[in-house]
Amino acid sequence: MKHRVITICREFGSGGRTIGKEVAKKLGIPCYDEEIIDRLIEKSGYSEEFIKNAGEYSVHKSWFASALSINPYQPLSPQDQVWIAERKLIEELGHENCVIIGRCADYILEDEADCLRVFIHSDFDKRAERVVNQYGETDIKIEQRLKDKDKRRSTFYQFYTDRNWGDIQNYDIVLNSGVLGIEKCVDIICSLY
Amino acid sequence: MKHRVITICREFGSGGRTIGKEVAKKLGIPCYDEEIIDRLIEKSGYSEEFIKNAGEYSVHKSWFASALSINPYQPLSPQDQVWIAERKLIEELGHENCVIIGRCADYILEDEADCLRVFIHSDFDKRAERVVNQYGETDIKIEQRLKDKDKRRSTFYQFYTDRNWGDIQNYDIVLNSGVLGIEKCVDIICSLY
Repeated sequence: MKHRVITICREFGSGGRTIGKEVAKKLGIPCYDEEIIDRLIEKSGYSEEFIKNAGEYSVHKSWFASALSINPYQPLSPQDQVWIAERKLIEELGHENCVIIGRCADYILEDEADCLRVFIHSDFDKRAERVVNQYGETDIKIEQRLKDKDKRRSTFYQFYTDRNWGDIQNYDIVLNSGVLGIEKCVDIICSLY
Repeated sequence: MKHRVITICREFGSGGRTIGKEVAKKLGIPCYDEEIIDRLIEKSGYSEEFIKNAGEYSVHKSWFASALSINPYQPLSPQDQVWIAERKLIEELGHENCVIIGRCADYILEDEADCLRVFIHSDFDKRAERVVNQYGETDIKIEQRLKDKDKRRSTFYQFYTDRNWGDIQNYDIVLNSGVLGIEKCVDIICSLY
């Protein structure tokens, strides 16, 4: 067993979450994604709304305004409070054998020598097709939805890690799921565990 | 057999060339690296010196000056002449089952649906160690040698492809050979052929 924790960073619509869940299932270990929010609520005492409003998908102009503003009644911004709690939780999860999806886990756990850092991407058209198939159409154009979500993820990542999201130096293996297929990606990752 | 041609782009000292040669050996197909220069001499009639002086490792200030200058006696710069000949040769090699190391082959052959585009990288320290072990020490500091060679490769790549070298979007699979090991990289690539 060479790697104990697998972190999966992914472009929106690349199937990275599905790959992570399949890998965990095959290896018989837990996969942490949305489950992290439930654990955070339980451990930190913050409300679901507070956590979601300060998390990666809420990154927009007012997020920055709030993240960077100084409030004398709050020594830390809500964003920093949630980041600190999430970081602490991921450090704890890093002691288990598990898969962790997103949330800068590759950065948080990089000093764990047995952490395998994965990035999943895919071509734009294939991602668009996957998102429409999985989540349906909305009023917002699919191109905009993909760009918007990737921008939030990359901005959040850069804000807290001082690194570029999707920069090969941050990952041990980068897979194009559109070319290789979900199943093959799962097999390759499992073979490295 | 899903992929027929494997192109390998690599950081200096990452073992990408060794991986390419091992993959070719395991699969029983040819690996083109330095062999491309011999073939170019044969096919184009250019001398070895002419080809080497216009190639990726000769990229420096005077390379640019020459590549960008207009000489009324030469409708194409030596750099462009060699690039055109090399491109034509790689397009021909793309009809075989083979491994091609470097030379923007991933870009040249990207419309070949059965081309697997690989990028190999590794951590700085591991690359430095490998280069010193393989090629010995020189008067130039190892940090400088790594930076210099990668800069030449990336500049050449960007000049002729209008893309960033090492940008994940250009590759189907990116492997950190320092973390995964040469042998495991070979196995993964072979499993995709």
